[in-house]
Amino acid sequence: MGGMEILRNLVKKTPARIVLVVLDGVGGLGGAGKTELESARKPHMDQLAREGVCGLWEPVAPGITPGSISGHLSLFGYDPFSYRILRGPVEALGLGYLPQRGDLYARGNFCTLGPNNLVTDRRAGRISTELNRQLLTKISSSIPQIQDVKISLLSGYEHRFCAIFHGDNLNGPLTDTDPQETMKPFLPSYPLTPEGEKAARVVNSFVSSCQEILKGEHPANFILLRGIDNLPRIPGMKELFHLTPAAIAIYPAYRGIAQLVGMKCIPVDGEAPEDEIRAFQSAWDSPSYDFFYLHFKKTDSYGEDGNFARKVQEIEKIDALLPAILQKQPDVMVITGDHSTPALMKSHSWHPVPVLLWAKNARRDSTLHFSESACLWGGLGHLRGPELMTVLLAHAGKLNRFCA
Amino acid sequence: MGGMEILRNLVKKTPARIVLVVLDGVGGLGGAGKTELESARKPHMDQLAREGVCGLWEPVAPGITPGSISGHLSLFGYDPFSYRILRGPVEALGLGYLPQRGDLYARGNFCTLGPNNLVTDRRAGRISTELNRQLLTKISSSIPQIQDVKISLLSGYEHRFCAIFHGDNLNGPLTDTDPQETMKPFLPSYPLTPEGEKAARVVNSFVSSCQEILKGEHPANFILLRGIDNLPRIPGMKELFHLTPAAIAIYPAYRGIAQLVGMKCIPVDGEAPEDEIRAFQSAWDSPSYDFFYLHFKKTDSYGEDGNFARKVQEIEKIDALLPAILQKQPDVMVITGDHSTPALMKSHSWHPVPVLLWAKNARRDSTLHFSESACLWGGLGHLRGPELMTVLLAHAGKLNRFCA
Repeated sequence: MGGMEILRNLVKKTPARIVLVVLDGVGGLGGAGKTELESARKPHMDQLAREGVCGLWEPVAPGITPGSISGHLSLFGYDPFSYRILRGPVEALGLGYLPQRGDLYARGNFCTLGPNNLVTDRRAGRISTELNRQLLTKISSSIPQIQDVKISLLSGYEHRFCAIFHGDNLNGPLTDTDPQETMKPFLPSYPLTPEGEKAARVVNSFVSSCQEILKGEHPANFILLRGIDNLPRIPGMKELFHLTPAAIAIYPAYRGIAQLVGMKCIPVDGEAPEDEIRAFQSAWDSPSYDFFYLHFKKTDSYGEDGNFARKVQEIEKIDALLPAILQKQPDVMVITGDHSTPALMKSHSWHPVPVLLWAKNARRDSTLHFSESACLWGGLGHLRGPELMTVLLAHAGKLNRFCA
Repeated sequence: MGGMEILRNLVKKTPARIVLVVLDGVGGLGGAGKTELESARKPHMDQLAREGVCGLWEPVAPGITPGSISGHLSLFGYDPFSYRILRGPVEALGLGYLPQRGDLYARGNFCTLGPNNLVTDRRAGRISTELNRQLLTKISSSIPQIQDVKISLLSGYEHRFCAIFHGDNLNGPLTDTDPQETMKPFLPSYPLTPEGEKAARVVNSFVSSCQEILKGEHPANFILLRGIDNLPRIPGMKELFHLTPAAIAIYPAYRGIAQLVGMKCIPVDGEAPEDEIRAFQSAWDSPSYDFFYLHFKKTDSYGEDGNFARKVQEIEKIDALLPAILQKQPDVMVITGDHSTPALMKSHSWHPVPVLLWAKNARRDSTLHFSESACLWGGLGHLRGPELMTVLLAHAGKLNRFCA
């Protein structure tokens, strides 16, 4: 019996309310100096660290760099080795698409194709969202369907979109057409199961048609598809943990994954952290929710850009907003990330993620700051994968005693 | 899907070069005082500890004392619970034997047999290598084969040798004839699978003949066999990790296990650590190798002898040689052991092994020394089994992101 099955038999419904604050990619590196967290002035986080208990968390396993989805699944208590979810369905849900049986989803990028089918820019210079919409309209009107398969296109930010193929016998997963590196040719999509043959044929035919339709454009003269799959079957957090979770997030991928695990996405009026806090406050007033996932993206974006100073500022900005959450007096509050994104590396990394847990019944440690170095010696020790969720449920009094 | 299978899907080939320095049995105990590592003057290791990240490593699992083979398999990224390799084939490879299909290998000791078939000295007073060779020649000329089975004998150091049985249907593993304690009778070898019946018959017949041939000798009047098995099938480090590994080791067992995981054994001209360093330097100049395993045996030997002071000196000797390795500027350098061998215990032990990892993208901790007590607080935390290899590959940039 796996860890999740054991947990499922121990959980109970209680009125206690949990807030999980995710600073995307918050973990960092300092080279010979301080990390992003160590550099930030963040009095509220440090105060919570002194009153609560800290630790380090390995979202997947030591040395393994999580993607956004696997990092989040693990945060939400799902074993990332058992549940593998591709980007296509996650993005489609996040863009507000209502799934139907028989859908096959792909995450798309507009890109620039040079001579010999080499991809010269995987993001077509991050074209405007407006141009993105115009190009999708052009594609839609030219290829409304392929054989019996209906195609819907959803515009995302900048170069990003979603393609949804709807018909019989469209079975994912398929391989990506995105070569992941520039100056490489794009790839045909292959089925990963024998049942995926028709799906691959349709997807590759769609890609060829797009090449024809976009050939006069510049720089967005082609598309790349990845994460091509059907909607995964995944038990919800209600079923697994008896929770009624609410998600406050702006970016489609995070809204998508939240919905996949059965969270209700709270509408956010605006795109700033302050707007998310307002959405949280109004969701709090609905007494049915007992789990709040608040996602802040920019710490990761600045990490990916290698912008150490802006990542530090973003941490400080979230810190300043914490009193508005604490004012609601959650029973358990956790601050962490879904993975590390050190500005020094300009990418996600395998380095363990600092965790801060505040609850009345936390066993206080001697941590004075919320940082990688302080968390290393924290009372939670080194947690792995879905263990973090277990610890969180425990502090909320939501777990029965194990066995006799 | 197990951890190794996941890792296999994430590894990529890069030019980064890794050096794994193994001080055999380096972990120790201090009683009420300092351990061997804590007593040693080792400025280079301490400097690397300050610049890198440290931790403790459980080669198998907490409380489990590793053998040399399981400790090394785990170091090389193999789950020691999935891959069990007996001593016979390891020693044969290490002695330079070229394996053939149908071989069955046994590690042998000359021993002293007293009245009532009781083993009075399991090593026959550590007879000279020269006498070993004479006795093996005597046995070989008397029993070149048994039925259709050809027998080859390879001399090792002192009382150690290897017996190779070559023929049809010789299926290991078989049980040991070595009772592992003195004043106990030697044992018949039993097959561990139904297919091993012929192999056991041949091995037991060989043992009886040796008793007859050696009965006039003293003290080496008999032999003990252990680790009797065919060559295991084990995927190489190239297949698993896309590495091209080189091994620099003197002792046959370590050369054997290195070859079993697909390492190229670099010739070493001499038997001193300095000779190994020279071999490393010349191997480094061959650009194809991207993983270097350097094995230093004497820390373990002095630990086994209970010679605390000499074990300390041996650590100091290796420390003095580190600049010759660092001069080559490896991308990742790890210093650790395959297990602990505290001089206070005169044997391998279960105590976790200190690990030091140096790499540009390591998250520095505040470790000031390379020692058991300092590593306890290190940023790598407590790693288990093959996780160490995962972390090592991560720091070398050789692992793709996990899932989306």
